[in-house]
Amino acid sequence: MQALRDRIASRALGPGDRMPSVRRFAAQMNVSPSTVVEAYDRLTAEGMIRSRPGSGFYVTNTHLPPMKVAGMGPPRARNVDPFWVSRQSLDARPGTLQPGCGWLPEDWMPQDALRKGLRALAKSDAALLTNYASARGSETLRRCLLGRFAEDHLSPTPGQLMLTASASQAMDLICRLLLRPGDTVLVDDPGYFNFHALLRTHQVRIVSIPYTHDGPDLTAFQSALSGAPRLYITNSALHNPTGATLSPQVAHRLLSLTAQTDLTIVEDDTFADLEPDPSPRLAVLDGLNRVLRIGGFSKTLSASVRCGYIAGRADWIEALVDLQVATSFGGPSPVATELLAQVLTGGSYRKHIAELHRRLARARKTAITRLAPLGITPWVLPQGGFYLWCRFPEGTDTGQVAQRAMEAAVMLAPGNVFSPSQTAASFMRFNVTQMDAPRVYDVLAAAMR
Amino acid sequence: MQALRDRIASRALGPGDRMPSVRRFAAQMNVSPSTVVEAYDRLTAEGMIRSRPGSGFYVTNTHLPPMKVAGMGPPRARNVDPFWVSRQSLDARPGTLQPGCGWLPEDWMPQDALRKGLRALAKSDAALLTNYASARGSETLRRCLLGRFAEDHLSPTPGQLMLTASASQAMDLICRLLLRPGDTVLVDDPGYFNFHALLRTHQVRIVSIPYTHDGPDLTAFQSALSGAPRLYITNSALHNPTGATLSPQVAHRLLSLTAQTDLTIVEDDTFADLEPDPSPRLAVLDGLNRVLRIGGFSKTLSASVRCGYIAGRADWIEALVDLQVATSFGGPSPVATELLAQVLTGGSYRKHIAELHRRLARARKTAITRLAPLGITPWVLPQGGFYLWCRFPEGTDTGQVAQRAMEAAVMLAPGNVFSPSQTAASFMRFNVTQMDAPRVYDVLAAAMR
Repeated sequence: MQALRDRIASRALGPGDRMPSVRRFAAQMNVSPSTVVEAYDRLTAEGMIRSRPGSGFYVTNTHLPPMKVAGMGPPRARNVDPFWVSRQSLDARPGTLQPGCGWLPEDWMPQDALRKGLRALAKSDAALLTNYASARGSETLRRCLLGRFAEDHLSPTPGQLMLTASASQAMDLICRLLLRPGDTVLVDDPGYFNFHALLRTHQVRIVSIPYTHDGPDLTAFQSALSGAPRLYITNSALHNPTGATLSPQVAHRLLSLTAQTDLTIVEDDTFADLEPDPSPRLAVLDGLNRVLRIGGFSKTLSASVRCGYIAGRADWIEALVDLQVATSFGGPSPVATELLAQVLTGGSYRKHIAELHRRLARARKTAITRLAPLGITPWVLPQGGFYLWCRFPEGTDTGQVAQRAMEAAVMLAPGNVFSPSQTAASFMRFNVTQMDAPRVYDVLAAAMR
Repeated sequence: MQALRDRIASRALGPGDRMPSVRRFAAQMNVSPSTVVEAYDRLTAEGMIRSRPGSGFYVTNTHLPPMKVAGMGPPRARNVDPFWVSRQSLDARPGTLQPGCGWLPEDWMPQDALRKGLRALAKSDAALLTNYASARGSETLRRCLLGRFAEDHLSPTPGQLMLTASASQAMDLICRLLLRPGDTVLVDDPGYFNFHALLRTHQVRIVSIPYTHDGPDLTAFQSALSGAPRLYITNSALHNPTGATLSPQVAHRLLSLTAQTDLTIVEDDTFADLEPDPSPRLAVLDGLNRVLRIGGFSKTLSASVRCGYIAGRADWIEALVDLQVATSFGGPSPVATELLAQVLTGGSYRKHIAELHRRLARARKTAITRLAPLGITPWVLPQGGFYLWCRFPEGTDTGQVAQRAMEAAVMLAPGNVFSPSQTAASFMRFNVTQMDAPRVYDVLAAAMR
């Protein structure tokens, strides 16, 4: 029952989905069919599933899974799945160390520039402080983004750009526009776990493409094209979680392979500013024709000031703007976008980024040195950013390590959370900026034992 | 072709939907079948629809409608549909008067309190300025909301409340959790147009319930229950667009009628603070069991500082939190929620609200007096708020009036935009706070002629 509840709670099984057959599930769980029949009967009595004679059991949509209610804290007793990582990191209790989280510590962020921006905002027009934004989002920030795109030799028209409430919401809007249940979507394996969680809510078929040191594996990619995938979702600069860099050859060949197909590519550029030397981008090679670029400001500026963007074909952007109006009555807060524009265009942002690059290079080196004695080694040496994708000694189950470490208030990001094919059990993603405390290494060592 | 394009653009026909049959559409448009065949052929050549032999034509999902690209301005050449009102009001060119919009002018909003809040924020902890919020949203604002609920004799546990990026997004998250394509949803007619736009993106069947001076028509409501609707969406305090007030009798009978059904009710409380004397609330009578309360701060505090909330059953809230993490990686900006909490708990907010009530009562009276000579009369006298739902002289098509007024830079909200049954062509919603300028009345008179 718990295994089934977890699948429903994590949306691996959504309302209307057919439950696994009694025989298959019994084999899978290594229990007798009568045990499964009893579990199904009880779940039926609870209203969670419903039997359709001659057809099997289906998840109902009138009753939702009675999940453990968390009160003010994070839900602890759940599977180590994508939601586990998100919720454990967002809802961490004070004092928890977070080498598994996806952001910089607050003292790495440009807080002086943010404070200066807030003081300036306090003096701005009343309209800015109280009115809705235009449907595409504040013009100031859009102009600033167009300027930054121009440095990449990309020159979209104003009609090709919109702001969103966050980079995640940018991805969600695109999925809502382009995907229908049952569509096939290609993702990197390993890849950003929240993309997988998002795709599950869209009830699409996820096909995972192994990620190599140079980008997605093109042999696997080419053979996946026979399934007529609708989308490929990736992030190119400093791939999450591996930190690998797309090579120009892979970028060009990937676009050539897909030229005659209906495939649309969403390239998440969230980590762009963390990259000291710009690497190839699919959006740039393609000129924003079949590639949509999305991004945000959470990694280098502020995750508290929520904002993302989408750049792509003008007709798609126009439809996405309508969709954002229908679902959120607009995008990011004008107060937020004004604050971001002020920091981005202020003189100190470039200095902040240059300093970040230096600090990150040092932090990557330090973490590698301190992980080595535990037999934990990086799979690739990233060219920038704060992630290290590390291999653990043969036979380690990093999911178990993460659960034990959580008991000692150290939040880790185990490999399989990033792997739809569940082939990364001996890997883990580390955030080198959250690993100063010796306790991180002590708890890791103990959890591995 | 244009009529079909418009239907696709407005999502009346979504990807995968079957196009009307040639014969039926020809009859409807009063053209010959061969004209329709030619239009379908051209749309097929454009990739917008696809023929399935023996089955008809279907909207494709690989090609999206080539909508007019708006550049930096609003799209003008589209049907007067819910999106027309949203986009015309959000993207109004400078100098446009907006009696059709859904917000107060900036000089009615508490700008001094907002400026004070921003200055305080500039001095706050770095963590607040740079980190993600907890998954349920900032504790300060949630505590403040729980306090306000207590005044309504509602005492949800902390696990029954979450913050969202906006009230609209609150509704969207609920729809994503509870609805599946093809489900039936009851809405008020007239009712808030963006709910209808939202429901269309969820591909559900909308059944409209006439709204009376006391709330939804219970005879229609009861007979609609035979269709096993999944949701009823309404707003009780100062109903949008009518400004009518739910009576205690209707509230109680509605909840009794639905007690034995699977129906969930979403009650939008967005206009609560605009109501001088509290009226009955379904959420309060029901105790947040089958009723979900949503709301926001855009109408009385700031629409620039985006934030909404959902209160309801704890297990639903828990699932909604996961859904918001998957789709937006969290809710509102912590900077935004802190600012809202400061204004709400500051001494000046209650004074601001009391003053608003006085000004609104005067503005309603003035607008009624100035509309009377045009033969435009309120359908009900609202107990508060800024909306007047008005009847025009017999035979007026307010959609046409709105289009003509738009040419003279006056943005209006014609009745049928609020009416899924399209039975409100002689009504219009006015925002009495946006009607000071004599030009509003001059343009109205000219457009009516």
